[in-house]
Amino acid sequence: MVRQDGRLLRGARSRRTILRHAVDVASLEGLTGLSLGRLATDLSLSKSGVQTLFGTKEKLQVATAETAAEVFREAVVAPALSAPHGLARLRALVDAWLTYAEAPLFPGGCFWGANLADFDSRPGPVRDTLFGQQRAWRDALAAEVRHAGVSSVDLIAFQLDAVLLATNTALRVGDPSAAPRARRVVDGLLAAG
Amino acid sequence: MVRQDGRLLRGARSRRTILRHAVDVASLEGLTGLSLGRLATDLSLSKSGVQTLFGTKEKLQVATAETAAEVFREAVVAPALSAPHGLARLRALVDAWLTYAEAPLFPGGCFWGANLADFDSRPGPVRDTLFGQQRAWRDALAAEVRHAGVSSVDLIAFQLDAVLLATNTALRVGDPSAAPRARRVVDGLLAAG
Repeated sequence: MVRQDGRLLRGARSRRTILRHAVDVASLEGLTGLSLGRLATDLSLSKSGVQTLFGTKEKLQVATAETAAEVFREAVVAPALSAPHGLARLRALVDAWLTYAEAPLFPGGCFWGANLADFDSRPGPVRDTLFGQQRAWRDALAAEVRHAGVSSVDLIAFQLDAVLLATNTALRVGDPSAAPRARRVVDGLLAAG
Repeated sequence: MVRQDGRLLRGARSRRTILRHAVDVASLEGLTGLSLGRLATDLSLSKSGVQTLFGTKEKLQVATAETAAEVFREAVVAPALSAPHGLARLRALVDAWLTYAEAPLFPGGCFWGANLADFDSRPGPVRDTLFGQQRAWRDALAAEVRHAGVSSVDLIAFQLDAVLLATNTALRVGDPSAAPRARRVVDGLLAAG
Protein backbone atom coordinates (compact mmCIF):
# COMPACT_ATOMS: atom_id res chain seq x y z
CA MET A 1 0.00 0.00 0.00
CA VAL A 2 2.83 2.37 0.93
CA ARG A 3 4.60 1.73 -2.37
CA GLN A 4 1.37 2.20 -4.32
CA ASP A 5 0.82 5.42 -2.38
CA GLY A 6 4.30 6.55 -3.33
CA ARG A 7 3.58 6.06 -7.01
CA LEU A 8 0.05 7.44 -7.05
CA LEU A 9 0.79 10.45 -4.90
CA ARG A 10 3.76 11.50 -7.00
CA GLY A 11 3.36 14.78 -8.84
CA ALA A 12 0.52 16.71 -10.31
CA ARG A 13 -1.15 13.72 -11.93
CA SER A 14 -2.03 12.03 -8.63
CA ARG A 15 -3.27 15.33 -7.24
CA ARG A 16 -5.50 15.59 -10.28
CA THR A 17 -6.80 12.02 -9.83
CA ILE A 18 -7.73 12.70 -6.22
CA LEU A 19 -9.35 16.03 -7.04
CA ARG A 20 -11.38 14.58 -9.90
CA HIS A 21 -12.81 12.00 -7.48
CA ALA A 22 -13.38 14.75 -4.90
CA VAL A 23 -15.47 16.70 -7.45
CA ASP A 24 -17.68 13.65 -8.04
CA VAL A 25 -18.19 13.13 -4.30
CA ALA A 26 -18.93 16.83 -3.75
CA SER A 27 -21.46 16.94 -6.60
CA LEU A 28 -23.45 14.21 -4.84
CA GLU A 29 -22.91 14.89 -1.14
CA GLY A 30 -21.60 18.44 -1.12
CA LEU A 31 -18.17 19.86 -0.28
CA THR A 32 -19.14 19.59 3.39
CA GLY A 33 -19.13 15.78 2.95
CA LEU A 34 -15.49 15.79 1.79
CA SER A 35 -12.63 14.91 4.09
CA LEU A 36 -9.00 13.92 3.66
CA GLY A 37 -9.79 10.60 5.37
CA ARG A 38 -12.80 9.89 3.14
CA LEU A 39 -10.77 10.42 -0.03
CA ALA A 40 -7.90 8.30 1.29
CA THR A 41 -10.32 5.44 2.04
CA ASP A 42 -12.13 5.73 -1.32
CA LEU A 43 -8.87 5.64 -3.28
CA SER A 44 -6.97 3.21 -1.02
CA LEU A 45 -4.33 5.78 -0.13
CA SER A 46 -2.86 6.63 3.24
CA LYS A 47 -4.51 9.55 4.98
CA SER A 48 -1.10 11.06 5.71
CA GLY A 49 -0.24 10.98 1.99
CA VAL A 50 -3.45 12.83 1.09
CA GLN A 51 -2.86 15.24 3.96
CA THR A 52 0.65 16.02 2.67
CA LEU A 53 -0.80 16.89 -0.73
CA PHE A 54 -3.66 19.10 0.44
CA GLY A 55 -2.97 20.23 4.00
CA THR A 56 -6.36 21.14 5.47
CA LYS A 57 -9.95 20.20 4.64
CA GLU A 58 -10.60 23.81 3.65
CA LYS A 59 -7.70 23.81 1.17
CA LEU A 60 -8.99 20.52 -0.22
CA GLN A 61 -12.47 22.07 -0.65
CA VAL A 62 -11.06 25.11 -2.49
CA ALA A 63 -8.88 22.90 -4.73
CA THR A 64 -11.92 20.70 -5.46
CA ALA A 65 -14.01 23.72 -6.47
CA GLU A 66 -11.17 24.93 -8.71
CA THR A 67 -10.98 21.52 -10.39
CA ALA A 68 -14.76 21.51 -10.93
CA ALA A 69 -14.50 24.94 -12.57
CA GLU A 70 -11.71 23.72 -14.89
CA VAL A 71 -13.75 20.69 -15.96
CA PHE A 72 -16.82 22.93 -16.42
CA ARG A 73 -14.93 25.41 -18.56
CA GLU A 74 -13.57 22.62 -20.78
CA ALA A 75 -16.94 20.88 -21.16
CA VAL A 76 -19.40 23.78 -21.23
CA VAL A 77 -17.66 27.06 -21.99
CA ALA A 78 -14.86 26.10 -24.41
CA PRO A 79 -17.04 24.35 -27.05
CA ALA A 80 -19.37 27.38 -27.19
CA LEU A 81 -16.48 29.72 -28.03
CA SER A 82 -16.59 28.59 -31.66
CA ALA A 83 -20.03 30.21 -32.04
CA PRO A 84 -20.05 33.92 -33.00
CA HIS A 85 -20.53 36.45 -30.17
CA GLY A 86 -24.07 37.37 -29.18
CA LEU A 87 -27.27 35.33 -29.41
CA ALA A 88 -25.57 32.39 -31.15
CA ARG A 89 -22.94 31.97 -28.44
CA LEU A 90 -25.52 32.51 -25.72
CA ARG A 91 -27.61 29.66 -27.13
CA ALA A 92 -24.50 27.50 -27.46
CA LEU A 93 -23.64 28.19 -23.79
CA VAL A 94 -27.16 27.37 -22.62
CA ASP A 95 -27.32 24.22 -24.78
CA ALA A 96 -23.94 23.05 -23.48
CA TRP A 97 -25.09 23.80 -19.94
CA LEU A 98 -28.29 21.78 -20.34
CA THR A 99 -26.28 18.84 -21.70
CA TYR A 100 -23.94 19.21 -18.71
CA ALA A 101 -26.89 18.97 -16.31
CA GLU A 102 -28.82 16.31 -18.23
CA ALA A 103 -25.93 14.00 -19.16
CA PRO A 104 -24.61 14.67 -16.37
CA LEU A 105 -20.90 15.51 -16.30
CA PHE A 106 -20.76 15.03 -12.51
CA PRO A 107 -22.78 12.20 -10.89
CA GLY A 108 -24.77 14.63 -8.70
CA GLY A 109 -25.46 17.08 -11.53
CA CYS A 110 -24.39 20.72 -11.39
CA PHE A 111 -21.50 21.17 -8.95
CA TRP A 112 -22.64 24.69 -7.98
CA GLY A 113 -26.26 23.61 -7.60
CA ALA A 114 -25.00 21.11 -5.02
CA ASN A 115 -22.79 23.57 -3.13
CA LEU A 116 -23.79 27.25 -3.38
CA ALA A 117 -26.71 26.96 -0.96
CA ASP A 118 -24.60 25.02 1.57
CA PHE A 119 -21.97 27.75 1.70
CA ASP A 120 -24.09 30.89 1.38
CA SER A 121 -24.23 31.13 5.20
CA ARG A 122 -20.57 30.08 5.76
CA PRO A 123 -18.14 32.96 5.08
CA GLY A 124 -14.58 31.97 4.17
CA PRO A 125 -12.35 30.97 1.26
CA VAL A 126 -14.63 28.11 0.08
CA ARG A 127 -17.63 30.44 -0.17
CA ASP A 128 -15.50 33.10 -1.90
CA THR A 129 -14.27 30.57 -4.46
CA LEU A 130 -17.74 29.15 -5.20
CA PHE A 131 -19.45 32.52 -5.54
CA GLY A 132 -16.55 33.94 -7.57
CA GLN A 133 -17.07 31.05 -9.98
CA GLN A 134 -20.81 31.70 -10.17
CA ARG A 135 -20.04 35.37 -10.88
CA ALA A 136 -17.65 34.37 -13.69
CA TRP A 137 -20.38 32.21 -15.28
CA ARG A 138 -22.96 35.00 -14.98
CA ASP A 139 -20.44 37.45 -16.44
CA ALA A 140 -19.87 35.11 -19.40
CA LEU A 141 -23.63 35.02 -19.99
CA ALA A 142 -23.92 38.79 -19.51
CA ALA A 143 -21.14 39.46 -22.05
CA GLU A 144 -23.09 37.60 -24.74
CA VAL A 145 -26.40 39.19 -23.73
CA ARG A 146 -24.69 42.56 -24.23
CA HIS A 147 -23.27 41.46 -27.61
CA ALA A 148 -26.77 40.38 -28.62
CA GLY A 149 -27.96 43.94 -28.08
CA VAL A 150 -30.50 42.79 -25.49
CA SER A 151 -31.36 45.44 -22.88
CA SER A 152 -31.36 44.74 -19.10
CA VAL A 153 -28.13 42.75 -19.41
CA ASP A 154 -27.68 41.99 -15.70
CA LEU A 155 -31.34 41.13 -15.17
CA ILE A 156 -31.35 38.67 -18.06
CA ALA A 157 -28.05 37.07 -17.02
CA PHE A 158 -29.33 36.70 -13.46
CA GLN A 159 -32.57 35.09 -14.69
CA LEU A 160 -30.73 32.72 -17.04
CA ASP A 161 -28.53 31.54 -14.18
CA ALA A 162 -31.52 31.21 -11.80
CA VAL A 163 -33.51 29.19 -14.35
CA LEU A 164 -30.56 26.88 -15.09
CA LEU A 165 -29.97 26.18 -11.38
CA ALA A 166 -33.68 25.45 -10.83
CA THR A 167 -33.61 23.21 -13.92
CA ASN A 168 -30.66 21.28 -12.47
CA THR A 169 -32.70 20.60 -9.32
CA ALA A 170 -35.75 19.55 -11.36
CA LEU A 171 -33.58 17.20 -13.45
CA ARG A 172 -32.20 15.57 -10.29
CA VAL A 173 -35.71 14.71 -9.06
CA GLY A 174 -36.65 13.32 -12.47
CA ASP A 175 -39.00 16.05 -13.71
CA PRO A 176 -39.40 15.12 -17.41
CA SER A 177 -40.47 18.65 -18.37
CA ALA A 178 -37.32 20.26 -16.90
CA ALA A 179 -35.12 20.56 -20.01
CA PRO A 180 -37.80 21.51 -22.58
CA ARG A 181 -39.21 24.03 -20.09
CA ALA A 182 -35.76 25.59 -19.64
CA ARG A 183 -35.40 25.96 -23.40
CA ARG A 184 -38.79 27.67 -23.65
CA VAL A 185 -37.92 30.01 -20.79
CA VAL A 186 -34.56 30.91 -22.35
CA ASP A 187 -36.21 31.55 -25.72
CA GLY A 188 -38.75 33.78 -23.99
CA LEU A 189 -36.08 35.71 -22.07
CA LEU A 190 -34.00 36.36 -25.16
CA ALA A 191 -37.01 37.28 -27.29
CA ALA A 192 -38.43 39.61 -24.63
CA GLY A 193 -35.07 41.25 -23.78
CA MET B 1 -32.47 17.28 34.31
CA VAL B 2 -34.75 14.28 34.21
CA ARG B 3 -37.57 16.24 35.85
CA GLN B 4 -37.05 19.17 33.49
CA ASP B 5 -37.09 16.68 30.60
CA GLY B 6 -40.32 15.26 31.93
CA ARG B 7 -41.97 18.66 31.88
CA LEU B 8 -40.52 19.92 28.61
CA LEU B 9 -41.10 16.72 26.70
CA ARG B 10 -44.72 16.48 27.77
CA GLY B 11 -47.24 16.86 24.99
CA ALA B 12 -47.42 18.67 21.72
CA ARG B 13 -45.95 21.91 23.03
CA SER B 14 -42.51 20.43 23.77
CA ARG B 15 -42.49 18.69 20.40
CA ARG B 16 -43.18 22.06 18.83
CA THR B 17 -40.37 23.73 20.79
CA ILE B 18 -37.86 21.12 19.63
CA LEU B 19 -39.06 21.27 16.04
CA ARG B 20 -38.91 25.06 15.92
CA HIS B 21 -35.26 24.89 17.01
CA ALA B 22 -34.66 22.10 14.47
CA VAL B 23 -35.98 24.35 11.69
CA ASP B 24 -33.51 27.09 12.68
CA VAL B 25 -30.59 24.64 12.71
CA ALA B 26 -31.64 23.15 9.36
CA SER B 27 -31.97 26.58 7.73
CA LEU B 28 -28.32 27.25 8.58
CA GLU B 29 -26.66 23.84 8.33
CA GLY B 30 -29.20 21.82 6.38
CA LEU B 31 -31.42 18.91 7.42
CA THR B 32 -28.39 16.65 6.97
CA GLY B 33 -26.78 18.46 9.94
CA LEU B 34 -29.70 17.55 12.24
CA SER B 35 -29.53 14.68 14.69
CA LEU B 36 -31.48 13.60 17.76
CA GLY B 37 -28.29 13.96 19.82
CA ARG B 38 -27.54 17.44 18.52
CA LEU B 39 -31.02 18.70 19.41
CA ALA B 40 -30.86 17.07 22.84
CA THR B 41 -27.52 18.80 23.54
CA ASP B 42 -28.68 22.20 22.23
CA LEU B 43 -31.84 22.13 24.37
CA SER B 44 -30.36 20.38 27.45
CA LEU B 45 -32.65 17.38 27.05
CA SER B 46 -31.84 13.69 27.28
CA LYS B 47 -31.18 12.04 23.96
CA SER B 48 -33.51 9.18 24.90
CA GLY B 49 -36.33 11.67 25.56
CA VAL B 50 -35.89 13.26 22.13
CA GLN B 51 -35.62 9.81 20.57
CA THR B 52 -38.93 8.76 22.18
CA LEU B 53 -40.64 11.79 20.64
CA PHE B 54 -39.26 11.45 17.11
CA GLY B 55 -37.99 7.90 16.62
CA THR B 56 -35.50 8.09 13.77
CA LYS B 57 -33.39 10.86 12.25
CA GLU B 58 -35.43 10.55 9.06
CA LYS B 59 -38.72 11.05 10.91
CA LEU B 60 -37.20 14.04 12.67
CA GLN B 61 -36.16 15.50 9.30
CA VAL B 62 -39.66 15.05 7.84
CA ALA B 63 -41.28 16.57 10.96
CA THR B 64 -38.84 19.50 10.77
CA ALA B 65 -39.71 20.16 7.13
CA GLU B 66 -43.43 20.03 8.01
CA THR B 67 -42.90 22.55 10.80
CA ALA B 68 -40.98 24.85 8.45
CA ALA B 69 -43.87 24.68 5.97
CA GLU B 70 -46.39 25.57 8.71
CA VAL B 71 -44.34 28.58 9.80
CA PHE B 72 -43.89 29.58 6.13
CA ARG B 73 -47.63 29.36 5.43
CA GLU B 74 -48.43 31.49 8.49
CA ALA B 75 -45.80 34.13 7.74
CA VAL B 76 -45.81 34.29 3.93
CA VAL B 77 -48.96 32.76 2.49
CA ALA B 78 -51.67 33.60 5.04
CA PRO B 79 -51.17 37.42 5.08
CA ALA B 80 -51.35 37.52 1.26
CA LEU B 81 -54.77 35.83 1.27
CA SER B 82 -56.44 39.13 2.12
CA ALA B 83 -55.42 40.52 -1.28
CA PRO B 84 -57.85 39.84 -4.15
CA HIS B 85 -57.04 36.91 -6.47
CA GLY B 86 -54.75 37.55 -9.43
CA LEU B 87 -51.98 40.09 -9.86
CA ALA B 88 -52.63 41.74 -6.48
CA ARG B 89 -52.30 38.48 -4.55
CA LEU B 90 -49.30 37.44 -6.63
CA ARG B 91 -47.52 40.68 -5.71
CA ALA B 92 -48.51 40.23 -2.07
CA LEU B 93 -47.07 36.69 -2.12
CA VAL B 94 -43.82 37.84 -3.71
CA ASP B 95 -43.51 40.82 -1.33
CA ALA B 96 -44.13 38.58 1.68
CA TRP B 97 -41.60 36.10 0.31
CA LEU B 98 -38.94 38.79 -0.11
CA THR B 99 -39.53 39.99 3.45
CA TYR B 100 -39.24 36.35 4.59
CA ALA B 101 -35.84 36.03 2.89
CA GLU B 102 -34.57 39.51 3.77
CA ALA B 103 -35.73 39.69 7.39
CA PRO B 104 -35.11 36.61 7.67
CA LEU B 105 -37.71 34.38 9.35
CA PHE B 106 -35.16 31.55 9.74
CA PRO B 107 -31.53 32.40 10.65
CA GLY B 108 -30.16 30.75 7.47
CA GLY B 109 -32.75 32.34 5.17
CA CYS B 110 -35.10 30.29 3.01
CA PHE B 111 -35.52 26.79 4.44
CA TRP B 112 -35.97 25.24 0.97
CA GLY B 113 -33.04 27.17 -0.48
CA ALA B 114 -30.94 25.50 2.22
CA ASN B 115 -32.29 21.98 1.67
CA LEU B 116 -33.68 21.24 -1.81
CA ALA B 117 -30.26 20.92 -3.45
CA ASP B 118 -28.96 18.67 -0.65
CA PHE B 119 -31.80 16.20 -1.12
CA ASP B 120 -32.30 16.29 -4.88
CA SER B 121 -29.92 13.30 -5.22
CA ARG B 122 -31.24 11.44 -2.12
CA PRO B 123 -34.55 9.65 -2.82
CA GLY B 124 -36.76 8.98 0.21
CA PRO B 125 -39.44 10.53 2.43
CA VAL B 126 -37.40 13.67 3.23
CA ARG B 127 -36.92 14.45 -0.45
CA ASP B 128 -40.60 13.71 -1.16
CA THR B 129 -41.69 16.06 1.61
CA LEU B 130 -39.38 18.92 0.56
CA PHE B 131 -40.24 18.72 -3.14
CA GLY B 132 -43.96 18.31 -2.40
CA GLN B 133 -43.74 21.57 -0.43
CA GLN B 134 -41.93 23.31 -3.29
CA ARG B 135 -44.67 22.07 -5.64
CA ALA B 136 -47.36 23.46 -3.32
CA TRP B 137 -45.67 26.88 -3.33
CA ARG B 138 -45.31 26.86 -7.13
CA ASP B 139 -48.97 25.79 -7.41
CA ALA B 140 -50.00 28.71 -5.21
CA LEU B 141 -48.07 31.08 -7.48
CA ALA B 142 -49.49 29.39 -10.60
CA ALA B 143 -53.07 29.73 -9.33
CA GLU B 144 -52.67 33.50 -9.06
CA VAL B 145 -50.84 33.75 -12.39
CA ARG B 146 -53.86 31.99 -13.93
CA HIS B 147 -56.27 34.34 -12.13
CA ALA B 148 -54.28 37.28 -13.46
CA GLY B 149 -55.00 36.08 -17.00
CA VAL B 150 -51.29 35.76 -17.74
CA SER B 151 -50.45 33.14 -20.38
CA SER B 152 -47.72 30.48 -19.90
CA VAL B 153 -48.86 29.88 -16.32
CA ASP B 154 -46.42 27.07 -15.50
CA LEU B 155 -43.46 28.80 -17.15
CA ILE B 156 -44.06 32.01 -15.20
CA ALA B 157 -44.58 30.17 -11.88
CA PHE B 158 -41.38 28.19 -12.46
CA GLN B 159 -39.43 31.37 -13.22
CA LEU B 160 -40.82 33.21 -10.20
CA ASP B 161 -39.75 30.34 -7.95
CA ALA B 162 -36.31 30.10 -9.61
CA VAL B 163 -35.72 33.86 -9.26
CA LEU B 164 -36.80 33.86 -5.59
CA LEU B 165 -34.48 30.95 -4.74
CA ALA B 166 -31.55 32.65 -6.51
CA THR B 167 -32.42 35.87 -4.68
CA ASN B 168 -32.31 34.05 -1.35
CA THR B 169 -28.77 32.86 -2.15
CA ALA B 170 -27.72 36.36 -3.22
CA LEU B 171 -29.16 37.83 0.00
CA ARG B 172 -27.20 35.30 2.08
CA VAL B 173 -23.90 36.43 0.54
CA GLY B 174 -24.79 40.09 1.09
CA ASP B 175 -25.53 41.16 -2.49
CA PRO B 176 -27.15 44.59 -1.97
CA SER B 177 -28.87 44.52 -5.37
CA ALA B 178 -30.61 41.19 -4.67
CA ALA B 179 -34.03 42.39 -3.47
CA PRO B 180 -34.53 45.35 -5.86
CA ARG B 181 -33.36 43.14 -8.74
CA ALA B 182 -35.91 40.47 -7.79
CA ARG B 183 -38.68 43.08 -7.78
CA ARG B 184 -37.67 44.31 -11.24
CA VAL B 185 -37.55 40.74 -12.57
CA VAL B 186 -40.98 39.92 -11.13
CA ASP B 187 -42.43 43.13 -12.61
CA GLY B 188 -40.93 42.17 -15.98
CA LEU B 189 -42.28 38.61 -15.81
CA LEU B 190 -45.80 39.74 -14.96
CA ALA B 191 -45.80 42.53 -17.54
CA ALA B 192 -44.43 40.26 -20.28
CA GLY B 193 -46.75 37.31 -19.45
